[in-house]
Amino acid sequence: MDEELEQKIAFIESAFEMEDLKALAGTVSGMRAPDVAEILAALQFDRRLVLFEVLPPELASETLPLLDEGTARAVLERIGESMIVRLVELMPSDDATDIINLLSPERAQQVLGGISWEEYEDVRELLKFDEETAGGLMAREIVTVTGETTINEVIMLLRTEVESVEQIQNIYVVDNKETLLGIIPLVNLLVVDHGSRAEEIMNTDVVTVTVDTDQEEVAAMFAKYDLYSMPVVDGSGRLVGRITVDDIIDVIEDEATEDITMMAGTGDEEVWERSPVKVSRARLPWLLTGLFGGIASAIVMNHFKHSLESVLALAFFVPVITAMGGNVGMQSSAIVVRELAVGGLSMVRTGVKLLRELKVSVINGIVLGSVLLVIVSLWQRDYRLGILLGLCMLTIIFWATLMGALVPLLLKRMDIDPALATGPFITTSNDILGILIYLGIATLFLDWIGGG
Amino acid sequence: MDEELEQKIAFIESAFEMEDLKALAGTVSGMRAPDVAEILAALQFDRRLVLFEVLPPELASETLPLLDEGTARAVLERIGESMIVRLVELMPSDDATDIINLLSPERAQQVLGGISWEEYEDVRELLKFDEETAGGLMAREIVTVTGETTINEVIMLLRTEVESVEQIQNIYVVDNKETLLGIIPLVNLLVVDHGSRAEEIMNTDVVTVTVDTDQEEVAAMFAKYDLYSMPVVDGSGRLVGRITVDDIIDVIEDEATEDITMMAGTGDEEVWERSPVKVSRARLPWLLTGLFGGIASAIVMNHFKHSLESVLALAFFVPVITAMGGNVGMQSSAIVVRELAVGGLSMVRTGVKLLRELKVSVINGIVLGSVLLVIVSLWQRDYRLGILLGLCMLTIIFWATLMGALVPLLLKRMDIDPALATGPFITTSNDILGILIYLGIATLFLDWIGGG
Repeated sequence: MDEELEQKIAFIESAFEMEDLKALAGTVSGMRAPDVAEILAALQFDRRLVLFEVLPPELASETLPLLDEGTARAVLERIGESMIVRLVELMPSDDATDIINLLSPERAQQVLGGISWEEYEDVRELLKFDEETAGGLMAREIVTVTGETTINEVIMLLRTEVESVEQIQNIYVVDNKETLLGIIPLVNLLVVDHGSRAEEIMNTDVVTVTVDTDQEEVAAMFAKYDLYSMPVVDGSGRLVGRITVDDIIDVIEDEATEDITMMAGTGDEEVWERSPVKVSRARLPWLLTGLFGGIASAIVMNHFKHSLESVLALAFFVPVITAMGGNVGMQSSAIVVRELAVGGLSMVRTGVKLLRELKVSVINGIVLGSVLLVIVSLWQRDYRLGILLGLCMLTIIFWATLMGALVPLLLKRMDIDPALATGPFITTSNDILGILIYLGIATLFLDWIGGG
Repeated sequence: MDEELEQKIAFIESAFEMEDLKALAGTVSGMRAPDVAEILAALQFDRRLVLFEVLPPELASETLPLLDEGTARAVLERIGESMIVRLVELMPSDDATDIINLLSPERAQQVLGGISWEEYEDVRELLKFDEETAGGLMAREIVTVTGETTINEVIMLLRTEVESVEQIQNIYVVDNKETLLGIIPLVNLLVVDHGSRAEEIMNTDVVTVTVDTDQEEVAAMFAKYDLYSMPVVDGSGRLVGRITVDDIIDVIEDEATEDITMMAGTGDEEVWERSPVKVSRARLPWLLTGLFGGIASAIVMNHFKHSLESVLALAFFVPVITAMGGNVGMQSSAIVVRELAVGGLSMVRTGVKLLRELKVSVINGIVLGSVLLVIVSLWQRDYRLGILLGLCMLTIIFWATLMGALVPLLLKRMDIDPALATGPFITTSNDILGILIYLGIATLFLDWIGGG
């Protein structure tokens, strides 16, 4: 947060102390909505609601869609339906739909009944789609013309519509069934002969998606083709809306946050959440997995009680075994998950990838196994224990890498989020299997290493 | 990857088998550059170079900046300087600079000597900046006019420049010292009176950055203000270039990849890398950290040898202790790192955040400690060992959470990438400290739990 905002926040806090609502309103009225949203997030919860109420309607309508879900719901609960109608009317259709989605069914009906027919039609259409698909991301405000329209007529149309369509990038050319024929980038309108017809100057090489395309795939297309906006079509090729790049940036950030929080074993709703009880509830299931995994490890160790009793030093190296299995598994799973997220992974690459991971694991296993062999031999003055640990390390690194790379690929095939495989599941199962392999091999060679 | 591309790749592979260069050229010539880049990435290394050479120059110039660094370097080594000059001439200045940055100093000089004066000036200016700053991201191709220019004149200017400026979003209005005064979105040119002057219709509320702003901060501003492009100014407010949102999407994806690979303890160059030796070299330092940490844990356990000899069951629970310390530390560090990456963190929030994490750790510690107490008491038929383990679990969860949240915040203050704190470092140090706390407490109460 920059200094200017910090100062505004300090000023607003003091206005709250003095209960000076007028000073509050004055401070925020000329600001940009994203800055207002940031200030609201920094305030105590009840103060956010008070400050929101003093915003001028236009600014309030731009700020509301930027708030975190908890604050937005609280604001909506506090203000009346007529106010909600007023704010929703000022929003583009995608934001309006998101806000109406936060309301109870009864209140949503009331608000839908209050807004203009045009906005109602758009929102009703958008409410049909899953929020995480192209349909859920798109807005309905688009400028469409038919192929015979002259550029002069297009410009006339723009003059009447410019207010209702924020961030116009392209004019869409459709036939009489609303099938998309091509697009005209705005700059082209400025440089062509005004008498030409739309179909003569349109660009027909257009990247489109259908309404049910997953948002992650849409984001990948924006990234790949350097798009600023993308038309969305329905199953029969009819143009129904467009997605803009600002919404795609949010998708990319959300997906990365989801991957990271899953890797760390926390709920993905948790960033920005303030209630310790809610945070704890999101994290506990993952931790309980780890706890029960740890108990399973203890049971495995109990099973090898006699080996541990005869060579206690075996126990000392259990943390080495678990740490390395965990680290190696995390490395290969995270890399595979990231590659899946950024680029998708074709059949060919799956094989290439697995082979690479296995080669890496052999190199790393030999290097790390040798280092461990030397250290243990010198420290415990027992080259046999050293050889045993070195070999176990090699085996475990190979195994943990294989699991780390294979599990996310399998999950992806089964249409389960592969990031699940990067979290506590992989480290926990690597712990248990690692100890089993280690103590199993040690018990087989117990006589040789001087126990038994 | 979609099916159409898979088919093209199969066709290209068979054209290679038959050494049919003409079929190769025919297949790719009409394609979009991002698709060509994806096909190249799927081919064997030497085939990539052959295929690149048959691309028409325009397509080659668009494809080259999209290749991974290794392939791009190999392509540049293979083609002559005159070809590089030809390709660089066709690129916007930011891409041209990136390519020239890949050349050896001698070849870079040769290429700079061959390109047009205009492009040379732009590239020389851009080469000054660090690649990870606004200056390193921006392109120099902008359309600027003075305040007195009429809209008619602006449109005339656009007609002459439209070819050289891809993705025009805004016209920039400057004074005679090139200080930025305001911007005119393209759509406004279409809807205002053509006789008006630029200064009358320009928008003066413009978000700008200076050339030395870090790319992560630039990306945060694009995300916050929903920008499509942003003007870049130098230290004295002179307009020197603009950044477009497509480059920002790459920055956001790269930064997320960097965080994820650091969390997993791998090099950040590694995604897409195919050589097992290089991958191994990137991962080994992190694994060695883990290995030496594991040895340190073994030394700690060796120190508590007598306690372990008298109550062997203490050893069984070492994996529970290390697993939970690691998981809890990973949770709090990942969340803090993500919040720092997405939004920055002000002084106020740092305190709020730490307090929240500590509250969460107390709740989780009590829940998980109690579960462990009950399980151990029942399994080992020893409520004293159960109580001991429950208390250790509580202590370790508190400690690991504190470290997990505090270390990234401290690193951020010291201007070190906080994501460093999420990787093997945090899990390794939590392992060692966890075992130390656990066996330390156990030894203190050894008589009570029936050992000694």
